Amino acid sequence: MNSSENLPTIFPKGVKASSDYFTGLVWLNVLVPKDETEHYSVADVVFEPGSRTNWHTHPAGQILLVTDGDGYYQERNTPPRKLSKGDVVVIPSHVEHWHGARRDSWFSHLALSNITGKGAVEWLMPVADDDYNRCH
Amino acid sequence: MNSSENLPTIFPKGVKASSDYFTGLVWLNVLVPKDETEHYSVADVVFEPGSRTNWHTHPAGQILLVTDGDGYYQERNTPPRKLSKGDVVVIPSHVEHWHGARRDSWFSHLALSNITGKGAVEWLMPVADDDYNRCH
Repeated sequence: MNSSENLPTIFPKGVKASSDYFTGLVWLNVLVPKDETEHYSVADVVFEPGSRTNWHTHPAGQILLVTDGDGYYQERNTPPRKLSKGDVVVIPSHVEHWHGARRDSWFSHLALSNITGKGAVEWLMPVADDDYNRCH
Repeated sequence: MNSSENLPTIFPKGVKASSDYFTGLVWLNVLVPKDETEHYSVADVVFEPGSRTNWHTHPAGQILLVTDGDGYYQERNTPPRKLSKGDVVVIPSHVEHWHGARRDSWFSHLALSNITGKGAVEWLMPVADDDYNRCH
């Protein structure tokens, strides 16, 4: 039984995100695959407690709009930033980072991803448990 | 006293939108004026019951993500579409339309507006009370 089954999410939860790129249970709902100008996509992402993205980069940046719960955003070699409802993260291009839920809270954000000829994301290694636990 | 003062909004309410372009009390919070590629902006909009935009068009489209409350989206010469939490509206370029709250509900949405050399919006006339009341 998944604890997120009855979460009061704004958008339908979508599909389970691939364990190739995420640790733990994460739900991905692509709301708009491409805007009219084909410059960006819009997705809603719901993270179970303890779940998170792998480390990754974006070739042309991404914007996160936190809609509920508590989580983290961390760039490589910098302290994690605590996130909660109403926070906005402007992620610069080519900066290695991850985002995800606290271990005691689910977490949801909208993700606006710029689309380029190289795609919208380059996936890297999972966030090690030691690194994740150090946030808390 | 404004009934939205204590609304449980996700994002801070921002500033009152200009009565030149809106009917009733509307709050506008520009979350990201321009993304890194300068292709779009992100704003949160909160409408008091009964409030709405003027008729307007976008030179390169806009996406609405409804985060709470109940409202309407209407294109010129088509029936209004009822909107509630979790709805997504992809507004094509150059199509005359308006959006706003029901008269008995506040309403909030995120607006992703494509930015062009001509700006992001061309404002037209207010939505007449008769046209607005016909939605209900």
